[in-house]
Amino acid sequence: MHRYRSHTCGALRKSDAGSTVRLSGWVHRVRDHGGVLFIDLRDHFGITQIVADPDSDCFSTAEKVRGEWVVRIDGEVKPRSEETVNPNLPTGEIEVFAREMEVLSEARELPLPVFGEPDYPEDIRLKYRFLDLRRETLHNNIMTRSEVISSMRRRMASAGFTEFQTPILTASSPEGARDFLVPSRIHPGNFYALPQAPQQYKQLLMVSGFDRYFQIAPCFRDEDPRADRLPGEFYQLDLEMSFVEQDDILNTMEPVVRGVFEEFAKGKPVTEEFPRIPYDEAILKYGTDKPDLRNPIIMQDVSEHFRGSGFKVFANILANDPRGAVWAVPAPTGGSRAFCDRMNSWAQGQGQPGLGYIFWREENGKVEGAGPIAKNIGEERTEAIRVQLGLKPGDACFFAAGDPKKFASFAGDARTRVGEELDLVDRDRFELAWIVDFPFYEWDEEEKKIDFGHNPFTMPRGGLGALENEDPLNIKAWQYDLVCNGYEIASGGIRNHLPEVMVKAFGIVGLDANTVEERFGGLYRAFHYGAPPHGGMAAGIDRIVMLLVGARNLREVTLFPMNQQAADLLMGAPAPASPAQLRELHLRTVAPEKDKD
Amino acid sequence: MHRYRSHTCGALRKSDAGSTVRLSGWVHRVRDHGGVLFIDLRDHFGITQIVADPDSDCFSTAEKVRGEWVVRIDGEVKPRSEETVNPNLPTGEIEVFAREMEVLSEARELPLPVFGEPDYPEDIRLKYRFLDLRRETLHNNIMTRSEVISSMRRRMASAGFTEFQTPILTASSPEGARDFLVPSRIHPGNFYALPQAPQQYKQLLMVSGFDRYFQIAPCFRDEDPRADRLPGEFYQLDLEMSFVEQDDILNTMEPVVRGVFEEFAKGKPVTEEFPRIPYDEAILKYGTDKPDLRNPIIMQDVSEHFRGSGFKVFANILANDPRGAVWAVPAPTGGSRAFCDRMNSWAQGQGQPGLGYIFWREENGKVEGAGPIAKNIGEERTEAIRVQLGLKPGDACFFAAGDPKKFASFAGDARTRVGEELDLVDRDRFELAWIVDFPFYEWDEEEKKIDFGHNPFTMPRGGLGALENEDPLNIKAWQYDLVCNGYEIASGGIRNHLPEVMVKAFGIVGLDANTVEERFGGLYRAFHYGAPPHGGMAAGIDRIVMLLVGARNLREVTLFPMNQQAADLLMGAPAPASPAQLRELHLRTVAPEKDKD
Repeated sequence: MHRYRSHTCGALRKSDAGSTVRLSGWVHRVRDHGGVLFIDLRDHFGITQIVADPDSDCFSTAEKVRGEWVVRIDGEVKPRSEETVNPNLPTGEIEVFAREMEVLSEARELPLPVFGEPDYPEDIRLKYRFLDLRRETLHNNIMTRSEVISSMRRRMASAGFTEFQTPILTASSPEGARDFLVPSRIHPGNFYALPQAPQQYKQLLMVSGFDRYFQIAPCFRDEDPRADRLPGEFYQLDLEMSFVEQDDILNTMEPVVRGVFEEFAKGKPVTEEFPRIPYDEAILKYGTDKPDLRNPIIMQDVSEHFRGSGFKVFANILANDPRGAVWAVPAPTGGSRAFCDRMNSWAQGQGQPGLGYIFWREENGKVEGAGPIAKNIGEERTEAIRVQLGLKPGDACFFAAGDPKKFASFAGDARTRVGEELDLVDRDRFELAWIVDFPFYEWDEEEKKIDFGHNPFTMPRGGLGALENEDPLNIKAWQYDLVCNGYEIASGGIRNHLPEVMVKAFGIVGLDANTVEERFGGLYRAFHYGAPPHGGMAAGIDRIVMLLVGARNLREVTLFPMNQQAADLLMGAPAPASPAQLRELHLRTVAPEKDKD
Repeated sequence: MHRYRSHTCGALRKSDAGSTVRLSGWVHRVRDHGGVLFIDLRDHFGITQIVADPDSDCFSTAEKVRGEWVVRIDGEVKPRSEETVNPNLPTGEIEVFAREMEVLSEARELPLPVFGEPDYPEDIRLKYRFLDLRRETLHNNIMTRSEVISSMRRRMASAGFTEFQTPILTASSPEGARDFLVPSRIHPGNFYALPQAPQQYKQLLMVSGFDRYFQIAPCFRDEDPRADRLPGEFYQLDLEMSFVEQDDILNTMEPVVRGVFEEFAKGKPVTEEFPRIPYDEAILKYGTDKPDLRNPIIMQDVSEHFRGSGFKVFANILANDPRGAVWAVPAPTGGSRAFCDRMNSWAQGQGQPGLGYIFWREENGKVEGAGPIAKNIGEERTEAIRVQLGLKPGDACFFAAGDPKKFASFAGDARTRVGEELDLVDRDRFELAWIVDFPFYEWDEEEKKIDFGHNPFTMPRGGLGALENEDPLNIKAWQYDLVCNGYEIASGGIRNHLPEVMVKAFGIVGLDANTVEERFGGLYRAFHYGAPPHGGMAAGIDRIVMLLVGARNLREVTLFPMNQQAADLLMGAPAPASPAQLRELHLRTVAPEKDKD
């Protein structure tokens, strides 16, 4: 017989009754029923109930074992009596009567219980991650994560992609976030950087002729702690394709992503055909480029009903600001003064002066708009708004007015709030959509200059012609995001593979060709030696897994995450380097001027 | 029609004749045949011959294009005449008559030709890696690498393993080589380290109950340049299993490795059943623990024939040194004075005093040993040696004498040399073997103390009992290597999961429990909370791919390798950090005292 086990703890069934087996695993819990000990023995595969009765040779060992000790047990499989069958356990029809028991490893008193998974402070969970990971929920989340990644790999291979490994010790990249640097021992005073993303390498792969690349890629950003981001490292499903247009990428990746979601959605509906929503439309309808489409509310521009109306605040905005507009957030079933007042208070809590509204009721068989705004603009305009928004008595709507660039985000929050408060959001589904036609440039109000809206590597729609002839702020980019339930889960674009277009595009934000060469030397140089048109995207794996398992925190889907202060409490990182190490790396540490830490 | 292509450049066949197609790709080469231009158009999938005749509308464009320009071509597929069919090309039965040609991207004069793959200096190849990667051999090597990794993943999943991602920003590990450090911005004066291997994390995964782990794992070692090692990063097939003994791991992994080799061996034979050779036996038979078993030569101990013999040099060694021995390197077909003298000169070139030998010839129907040693020891002993080694007239053998610990490596080199010189090595096969029973400890001659032979995480054979009762230098480890054709391609062991055994094992090399805790805190702590017996191994992926494609250098199977000075010539890494970056990281660089660089 095998030294440790003839079966796993999830394997035995009624048909095994009568056989002699050997199991190894962790003591999940021990119960004493009138002198007979029942041990739930747990391994990765399941739990089996072990019975040690006082006559058994191993009873003295069984009396000694405690939670999380590792033991080997030899014994006989017996069917449970009908009333003790546990239908919730695959092994619930049997139990193993222990004949021999060997302690393979003892456990000290547990700083964190495994059985029952009681809530525990996160620093304890991270420090004793090896115990935390034995807990059922986290253990399963991690397994799901592995299965999701495996499914992604399988689907990408089926779609004709090949996985490549791009370097992790690479050059500092000025793409966006802060790099982690790695001092070079051989080249004093010089540093490698960890990749924020394999962006330049994947484009170089296309220039090298590899046609369809993907990678489950570790990415590194030295960012300040944020609730929705893991400090340090995270994983992307990164991909790139040659000789493609935007539709090719969307059409290739949509079935991959949908397939992954359907595989792990546990029956929850997944969007059949992802809508493709232009950025401007997303902002108007949802107030954000990451809309949660489980929320059925769609905002509308209702400016015309306020132009020259008796509601002077809005009428004046429209009269004085050429960009001024009034948007409505419909609130089906929200038609009560109490609810409208609650929303108004919420808005004030958000730093807004208030939140105008109309709500409709039926009075004497007649539909009537109520509230101060309705009173000010009169019955006809109020009714026109109701008709445009398709609202009924018992419904309400809220208004945001001014320059949409400034209020859209708040309007989107109001939409979210209304949806949640009125319970309009069906949480048990995955609503996916592409957001397309992002602005290529945006106005940087602080610096008073034009800057890239998204990714400087993206091809502007209209190419060189657009850059030469159009108002930069009107140019759209071949740039797209994939959103799910209010989260951006992927982002990509068709790349700018033409050096002259690249130089022109950077010129408009005030950077000359030398700067382009200096910043993106490897890639820019490559574009001078025959570059195919290409594009791709990158999907956030941690976020996708989090959505799929319904976790609220990225650390719930990550094996050994750092805490919010970017420290690994289990391994004790970061830690001081030895003087010898620093000497070899030609470095001296400098204590911060102010004592912050 | 698609914007860029209706077919790839590898797709068209005779059956497509008559159809109108669109292709995009790189201009591989252009030939002018009496005014008609023939363009070999290349993409990832193949090469198609394009014909542009002077009447075609696109002729003026065709005249303009040069090697490595990227073009789109519309045209008509025509069958080639019988005498122009190219049987070496899958598309060789057709050509495409171009009607329209669009330049998608131009190429400057090439610093490195793609067509024909002429030899080029490595620094040019690395700087223009995107051109180098278009060359057929390297392009195919990289694809094979990806396929090998994919095959490993598939086979590991079939064997019940799950892939997990362990952290890359982690704690400094004192396992062996030098760490790369990553300064922390948030924790001044502290550093993360990049993992030399996920050793501790994979063991923690077992302690966390995950049973079978694997990972295609990036590993990082800041080592001085060596011909057979990539500077910086490399990849391992890393794995670990719970509740196993050594045989379980060998039996699980042997089919995985054999399967991978068979899949990519292109018909070359692969060892059917990997022999398991104890370390001591490997040293005696092959002079190394990384034997090339394609070489049929097996060394033998022939001490008894020299003890008290007339060959005083050897006889004295045997008489005076209790560890003294004489080993023979048989050299079938090497039985000529010329060959034996050549080997003797080679040995002297290796810094040896010389290389004793006997060779056998047939004189007047009688087998006769020749050479000075034969003369000294006499006919009977000479014949006994011949019989023991199973040699015939026309064969020779060479001798190494002294303390085997000191001469074994040289004897192994002599074995290799003899095998190569006499052409006894069948290069077209993959000979794999497990080396087992490594010494747990070794004597550190410099420090005059006992040190770990291999891996301090390994369980000694005999456990605590052996550590307490045996001569440390006689204890073997549950430690194994996998070798192929003279290379170590994998290494592993059954781990020491018992804190008290760990403390005892470290105690013998002079390190106390506090040091163990300090060095391996996370793992050592985990072992106190219920650790399963476990073990695993790690295989070097780069090396395996190198063997499979028959490359001579790891850079020939790596996408974007650094050069031997650990510099990335394409991206320009490492590079100086900006003063702002250094300030944020609380670092100052210190110029080396001597100007070395």
